[in-house]
Amino acid sequence: MYSFACDYLEGCHEEVLKALCQTNLEQTPGYGADRFTKAATEKIRQLCRDDAAAVYFVNGGTQANQLVIDTMLQPYEGVVAAQSGHVNVHEAGAIEFSGHKVLAIPSARHDGKLAAADADAFVKAFYADPNHEHMVFPGMVYISHPTEYGTLYTAQELRELSAVCRRHHMSLYLDGARLVYGLAAYGTDVTLSLLDELCDVFYIGGTKAGALNGEAIVFPRGAEPPHFLTRIKQHGALSAKGRLIGTQFAALLENDLYFRIGRHAIDMAREIRKIFQDAGCRFYLDSPTNQQFVILENESLRKLSAWVGFEFWEPYDAAHAVVRFASSWATTPAGIAELRKAVALCLPRK
Amino acid sequence: MYSFACDYLEGCHEEVLKALCQTNLEQTPGYGADRFTKAATEKIRQLCRDDAAAVYFVNGGTQANQLVIDTMLQPYEGVVAAQSGHVNVHEAGAIEFSGHKVLAIPSARHDGKLAAADADAFVKAFYADPNHEHMVFPGMVYISHPTEYGTLYTAQELRELSAVCRRHHMSLYLDGARLVYGLAAYGTDVTLSLLDELCDVFYIGGTKAGALNGEAIVFPRGAEPPHFLTRIKQHGALSAKGRLIGTQFAALLENDLYFRIGRHAIDMAREIRKIFQDAGCRFYLDSPTNQQFVILENESLRKLSAWVGFEFWEPYDAAHAVVRFASSWATTPAGIAELRKAVALCLPRK
Amino acid sequence: MYSFACDYLEGCHEEVLKALCQTNLEQTPGYGADRFTKAATEKIRQLCRDDAAAVYFVNGGTQANQLVIDTMLQPYEGVVAAQSGHVNVHEAGAIEFSGHKVLAIPSARHDGKLAAADADAFVKAFYADPNHEHMVFPGMVYISHPTEYGTLYTAQELRELSAVCRRHHMSLYLDGARLVYGLAAYGTDVTLSLLDELCDVFYIGGTKAGALNGEAIVFPRGAEPPHFLTRIKQHGALSAKGRLIGTQFAALLENDLYFRIGRHAIDMAREIRKIFQDAGCRFYLDSPTNQQFVILENESLRKLSAWVGFEFWEPYDAAHAVVRFASSWATTPAGIAELRKAVALCLPRK
Amino acid sequence: MYSFACDYLEGCHEEVLKALCQTNLEQTPGYGADRFTKAATEKIRQLCRDDAAAVYFVNGGTQANQLVIDTMLQPYEGVVAAQSGHVNVHEAGAIEFSGHKVLAIPSARHDGKLAAADADAFVKAFYADPNHEHMVFPGMVYISHPTEYGTLYTAQELRELSAVCRRHHMSLYLDGARLVYGLAAYGTDVTLSLLDELCDVFYIGGTKAGALNGEAIVFPRGAEPPHFLTRIKQHGALSAKGRLIGTQFAALLENDLYFRIGRHAIDMAREIRKIFQDAGCRFYLDSPTNQQFVILENESLRKLSAWVGFEFWEPYDAAHAVVRFASSWATTPAGIAELRKAVALCLPRK
Repeated sequence: MYSFACDYLEGCHEEVLKALCQTNLEQTPGYGADRFTKAATEKIRQLCRDDAAAVYFVNGGTQANQLVIDTMLQPYEGVVAAQSGHVNVHEAGAIEFSGHKVLAIPSARHDGKLAAADADAFVKAFYADPNHEHMVFPGMVYISHPTEYGTLYTAQELRELSAVCRRHHMSLYLDGARLVYGLAAYGTDVTLSLLDELCDVFYIGGTKAGALNGEAIVFPRGAEPPHFLTRIKQHGALSAKGRLIGTQFAALLENDLYFRIGRHAIDMAREIRKIFQDAGCRFYLDSPTNQQFVILENESLRKLSAWVGFEFWEPYDAAHAVVRFASSWATTPAGIAELRKAVALCLPRK
Repeated sequence: MYSFACDYLEGCHEEVLKALCQTNLEQTPGYGADRFTKAATEKIRQLCRDDAAAVYFVNGGTQANQLVIDTMLQPYEGVVAAQSGHVNVHEAGAIEFSGHKVLAIPSARHDGKLAAADADAFVKAFYADPNHEHMVFPGMVYISHPTEYGTLYTAQELRELSAVCRRHHMSLYLDGARLVYGLAAYGTDVTLSLLDELCDVFYIGGTKAGALNGEAIVFPRGAEPPHFLTRIKQHGALSAKGRLIGTQFAALLENDLYFRIGRHAIDMAREIRKIFQDAGCRFYLDSPTNQQFVILENESLRKLSAWVGFEFWEPYDAAHAVVRFASSWATTPAGIAELRKAVALCLPRK
Repeated sequence: MYSFACDYLEGCHEEVLKALCQTNLEQTPGYGADRFTKAATEKIRQLCRDDAAAVYFVNGGTQANQLVIDTMLQPYEGVVAAQSGHVNVHEAGAIEFSGHKVLAIPSARHDGKLAAADADAFVKAFYADPNHEHMVFPGMVYISHPTEYGTLYTAQELRELSAVCRRHHMSLYLDGARLVYGLAAYGTDVTLSLLDELCDVFYIGGTKAGALNGEAIVFPRGAEPPHFLTRIKQHGALSAKGRLIGTQFAALLENDLYFRIGRHAIDMAREIRKIFQDAGCRFYLDSPTNQQFVILENESLRKLSAWVGFEFWEPYDAAHAVVRFASSWATTPAGIAELRKAVALCLPRK
Repeated sequence: MYSFACDYLEGCHEEVLKALCQTNLEQTPGYGADRFTKAATEKIRQLCRDDAAAVYFVNGGTQANQLVIDTMLQPYEGVVAAQSGHVNVHEAGAIEFSGHKVLAIPSARHDGKLAAADADAFVKAFYADPNHEHMVFPGMVYISHPTEYGTLYTAQELRELSAVCRRHHMSLYLDGARLVYGLAAYGTDVTLSLLDELCDVFYIGGTKAGALNGEAIVFPRGAEPPHFLTRIKQHGALSAKGRLIGTQFAALLENDLYFRIGRHAIDMAREIRKIFQDAGCRFYLDSPTNQQFVILENESLRKLSAWVGFEFWEPYDAAHAVVRFASSWATTPAGIAELRKAVALCLPRK
């Protein structure tokens, strides 16, 4: 049964695998001092148009989030995030494990985005409170792009968030677990070099973008926390064979592979979207990226799940639920065809 | 200028001071093994009608909260609290410092109370979420009584909260920083022995109840975390001269002093309330305890602050603010008279 | 039975108690903003000859150590200490609880002191190690003065330690739980103003020096960690009634009381020393301060413990043990007389 | 230039790579729920002769150590280790980061092993200390096998350590980063099923044993900490594509590959050993595993480093240093030949 349950169902892109095979027996030093990691770093600098960018590679997203937030914050600071932010909900308390509070901002909107105005109001209220020295200082704004709901910030929205952060001496951190699908979306005006300009730190996701594992943390203009390698080790996040991730990123960033991967997934997501639109389904929100959130009747959901894989997201009302279909670099036209057939079979004609 | 800014403006009740003076030169062992601490423990057991209650004394409320929450929770668990709960807002991240997330429940109501139904719904939604193993487990419910807004739970409400906790294998923790003013309120049906029955741990505040410092943590039926003394030390919370707090609690709990202190403050709070009612003021909410939250016009607030001390709480609207007047064991009739005069002078006649 | 088991057996010096009584009902703001705390701060600045010294008061020694070490270190740094240092042995892991390693230096000597040369060699070896980025950086040197064995550094030894610290960009922290007995020792050339000159932070103990509780943390020249009040709160160490400790330190530092207390204890310790010398006992080491470590035959120890209180320290050999007799501000001539009688009764004539 | 600097210089064994290639596009669920991870788990259970063993896969050794130690210890407990233990020296404070103290036992011997008698004496002294409630409780014994110096425990020594642990209610944890080279050593009587019998937890290293990354944590008889998956996530150690490590371990444990890898490295290490023996060199100690510690004259060291890669370990005396030559699954006869030539060229004839 073909599955759209998430975007990390397969191994890695064949170009990535080829690179691993070709370099496998070369001897290299450990801990990221190898030539592949250096090459990957260089390519990221070029894409970011930032020769001084400091780049570090870690295994996964929660690890990147814990490490970045803990090392960029002062110990008396917390991280401002949308209530629905991954760090607030789905990381098993990894941020608090390292001693920091997530300052969650309830958003009236269900699109997972944190508005600059909301962040600004929160921080202003904090400093206006005469008791704020008894409270957790807001030291960073965390956003994900695409968000947990597949939505995207515009360049203008990012500029505003960045301005709020700079005004209040907070850092801006962008979680790019699915950044590949954000950069490749139709109509977006966000680029890597814009992120490098506006953020204090961000990561470029590899695990969901064609790699077996790995995320690239970027500190624009070289502004990394002191002794960052030691901090990585202290967090249990330093790979002996740093080459594993370095080689994969070097391959991903060669010949535009990374962007081709993203565009492929976006096009597949459009196919998914069209299938459900044609079936008369509503969407939970309008996502321009690889995750599509469809509202299904409970009975249709039950039927469909026998034919194709997807993820239950949350109840919508008594009779409906939100489900997620995710495309990825690996989604095949054959998979899309199976989905089309299954939907025709299981969903009522409208 | 007489102040009602908070309930910890003076030193300690004269009976408490007398006890310190009378026992001052007696030699006792350290770390809470002295006879005064034992006497205080015994009195608390009697009041709780629980011969097996384990009792420990620490210096302050944030310390008690950090210590209790950290030691009662498993490392993968967080504490459920009202959004306005002290542990969520005003403890500078002391809970997260010890590695635990505060699972804040936004309350529609502004009275600071956590409804059993809201806690129940939160926990049910947690376990219903197929991804809950990637989330922080709810391991405890934290409430304050009186709340940060001076409001009180009824015995029935506490029973419901306790039932929710037991159903979901969470502990129930009651922060009693101002418990003295809750127990002494008119019309309450909550008693120490009820708390002992319903809670897994609670603390009886001393600092705001006539002591120089000190809070008594009570583990009903002896169900304390293993090696709790070592954990107290590990948190930097173990007093070499444990007698300081032990002696004070022994004095407070002698001859009903603790309850007389509470009733005095309640009566003084009623005087405060009447003064503002007579002046035609509105109240932010109806508080039966020692804290009164009055809505003042900004201009009245400005004028009044030249004559009497009180605490700005939060803006109400463009023209008004909420301010707090707190009575305590130490509030004097002369202070009340000053307040009456100041209000007559500064507030517009209605 | 009179006890010499430790130096925190009694309450507080009568002058301290008088100050608490006299100021008891005065209304003051909380959290250390009261006039007594300010007065105590001012006196400490004068004694340190440092108008800019930042001074904070906390409840106890372990709390002070955890707070200072955690806030002065970077998160990737540990604290260098003698193997026998209090922070390495007797604080239930309070330092590690806040995330830092104690880098214990085994000392060949049994006197509890950390030699500058040993600290220097340790740090040099660290930086010489090609893998030191995988290790905990030495960020601070911790010493206690007097040490856990009652011994004292000379001004010259402190100068050398300070020079090592400055050379290697480490801070120097002096734990002064019993500082009063170090400053009052005969023959010492260490003064408060010297400590202010050489240390980056130190604390002046109150609990063992005539106060009910309280330690004064001093950051010379105002070089305190940022948002230190918030960090105190985060550690659960901020007192609502800051006046309790402020008032006591103000009284201790009035009219040379603090130094008179120290000298009294030293003189009493000399009496203790003489009693055991006259009885032909050996000493574990030569302590010029209030703690005397006597080597007793096991049988003598057993007998003596029926007549006078003291503390078993550690086994010496199969037939002997080290025991501690501590004098304090509260030791009375009558107590000394009891000890003399008990020793005459229980120890074999030599 | 051929390098013997460490045992993680190359990618992975070709059989492992083949398995990754063959399964690459198969869709599997994430977080270790895939069939490859299940197969690897099953094979480990068989080798351990323990059907109930709980097995989890993480990325690296420091991560495994931090995770296991933090989750197996109570919060008031520390881990007993040899002074030279990896967790005490070369993990950048990762253990303390999670709140636990390493209770380092200085060993008179330089072989990196922790003697059962030394552990026993340490724990007995702890419980005999009347102040032990103010100290960190010993909750676990950590050993590495092979040790950091390549030495091995005998079955008898492990039995004694296990007995000490059980007597004192401590868990026994064996760090098997290089376990493959321990199991394959000539003359050892230690097997996986013995480890399963004697340890409470151990890990089987993959990174240094032919995998790109990954370590398999084994809890014998299913005695894993509660909610261990959540704890892995909380530590930032949960892989979205758990299949990456699962597939590799499944391949390593197929057809005895793992043991063949180990034996190959041992045989290569013997060649290395013979080369230096023939050149008249002394060894720092007698290592039966893949790491050989040779004592070189400083001048020889300098010369040799131009011809072949190895690791400076530590100074030996003014004229000599200890250097490490490591073989691995990947060491080639051609590499050995280069070493032989280089030694002949650079070292003085004896």
